[in-house]
Amino acid sequence: MKSVTVADVRTAATRIAGRTVATPLLSSPYLDEIADCQLFVKAESLQLTGSFKLRGALNMMLALDAAAASRGVITYSAGNHGQGVAAAARSIGCPAVILLPNNAPETKVDSCRWWGGEVHTYDPRLDDREELVQQLIEQRGLTFIPPFDHPLIIAGQGTVGTEIVDSLQARAVEPDAVVMGASGGGLAAGVTLTMSHTYPDLRCYVAEPAGADKLARSLVSAQRVELPRSRPTTVMDALAGPVPGAHPLEVLRRLDVRGLTVTDAQALTAVRVASRMLKVVVEPGGAAALAAVLNNLKTFSGKTVVVIASGGNIDAALYQQALDEDALVEA
Amino acid sequence: MKSVTVADVRTAATRIAGRTVATPLLSSPYLDEIADCQLFVKAESLQLTGSFKLRGALNMMLALDAAAASRGVITYSAGNHGQGVAAAARSIGCPAVILLPNNAPETKVDSCRWWGGEVHTYDPRLDDREELVQQLIEQRGLTFIPPFDHPLIIAGQGTVGTEIVDSLQARAVEPDAVVMGASGGGLAAGVTLTMSHTYPDLRCYVAEPAGADKLARSLVSAQRVELPRSRPTTVMDALAGPVPGAHPLEVLRRLDVRGLTVTDAQALTAVRVASRMLKVVVEPGGAAALAAVLNNLKTFSGKTVVVIASGGNIDAALYQQALDEDALVEA
Repeated sequence: MKSVTVADVRTAATRIAGRTVATPLLSSPYLDEIADCQLFVKAESLQLTGSFKLRGALNMMLALDAAAASRGVITYSAGNHGQGVAAAARSIGCPAVILLPNNAPETKVDSCRWWGGEVHTYDPRLDDREELVQQLIEQRGLTFIPPFDHPLIIAGQGTVGTEIVDSLQARAVEPDAVVMGASGGGLAAGVTLTMSHTYPDLRCYVAEPAGADKLARSLVSAQRVELPRSRPTTVMDALAGPVPGAHPLEVLRRLDVRGLTVTDAQALTAVRVASRMLKVVVEPGGAAALAAVLNNLKTFSGKTVVVIASGGNIDAALYQQALDEDALVEA
Repeated sequence: MKSVTVADVRTAATRIAGRTVATPLLSSPYLDEIADCQLFVKAESLQLTGSFKLRGALNMMLALDAAAASRGVITYSAGNHGQGVAAAARSIGCPAVILLPNNAPETKVDSCRWWGGEVHTYDPRLDDREELVQQLIEQRGLTFIPPFDHPLIIAGQGTVGTEIVDSLQARAVEPDAVVMGASGGGLAAGVTLTMSHTYPDLRCYVAEPAGADKLARSLVSAQRVELPRSRPTTVMDALAGPVPGAHPLEVLRRLDVRGLTVTDAQALTAVRVASRMLKVVVEPGGAAALAAVLNNLKTFSGKTVVVIASGGNIDAALYQQALDEDALVEA
């Protein structure tokens, strides 16, 4: 298996430049007080399509040859990667087919369609999405754009880390830790690779839904742990995939990344905190990293901590529910 | 009356650098389609304190002599300027007294206190806030930091315009129009001054609550129009002041700024649009400029338009209400 390198991330940054937003690194003294650390929040939900997924999709699709691009691309997605692929396809001018679970948030389905994606839905309890994708590839000569398990995808997501380093250096700040929401691990691998290169002593953490911490379990057991189909649902739909990627896992193990877990209630509280203190809309999965910091105060006390907040695609009803409570931190 | 100049804004930018966030200029192809123009949104609600008000307050307070600073400052505010003054005082290390109306949003009152402000409340229907301020100035030797009607305040708010110009030039984009929510007119004056200097053909608009368009009326009648105390209330509390400033009005008249009005329903729709499409939290007053564009499609059709979105200090119940409807544009 070919490892992803820091040079791959640099190439990706050059390749996708001008097609993505360099999102801001936000801070709030008020939030720092609550978190008992110096917190920097990479507001990646302000990215086009509301999440980092556009970066990896663009990096892989801009590397396609002209014939493959003209036939088009296909992917499956919990919703954010689908939007990223659809928007990348629009940016490049190629067709895109997006398979979404029939329980994906409406806002994600609508947005995939708006960007020009041809949306197919499947039943995640009954259908084999790999098989559905394979059929369409054979019928139409489409290229599969995987959600995370590919060096080009990881390198693209890693550009989030490049921007974080730039922002920290502009402020002359050296971070002690970075916390990233993770499912397949593409973002976490790319960012860990980039930031660890600049800051060798950096502690890197992935935040996962409690009871569905497949990356943490995989890191401990040194093999890819697949969650059972019968696992409980979570409001963190973006982090609900069944299994981490082999490429991401290789990077995360090599760089000694550790796992933290977050409950649904903690994630929704972090959605509210981001809204109230940072004025940024994040979905529960996008708020998992912030939630992990707010609920592991001892781990991060007094430290300088970077948190990635991505994505921001949340249905109105769930957002209203998240805003509903007064408490800013779980008791 | 001494006019504010572009040089004053440049001085302000240097003076406050490092104490404020250079907020991003966001765009969304999806939003462009709805607005039928190329829209750039200055996401100033991501500023510390959730609004641009910190800029002017810092610019004036950093110009105080040491003795005056140590005695402290005082202001009255609908809430956002109060937070700006309290945060500037914290940044500089001086005491701040903030007078707020007893109907200010809770989030604004809490935030003024959190930043270290000594909050006093008054009844806007009964009390004369000018008189209350005067008493405290006499008792404690405080310096008044006006919400808008001062060259240093206007110059500080104008740094929003400096950043917009920088962001547009980085994208090689030339704007046709800028739309700014306005009440006293400090932000509008500073931004108009700065942007018109770089783009002499720019059309500049202020957005005000329907029925409380004191700036538009003042521009037409060439004198400061004061709204009656009995005027209807508005969800755009940040734009609900009784009278525009003399200094801002001079700038806005000279540079031929025009007025647009926005209903409460239109402002709430724009709050929802900003949340869904830009992932930024804005309060109704902060969304007025976006609302003005979305409801004057003919005026802006096909144009390149900059909109300022500030502030983002909205109570949860009102935010939930704004998110409640499906429509993204008023019928």
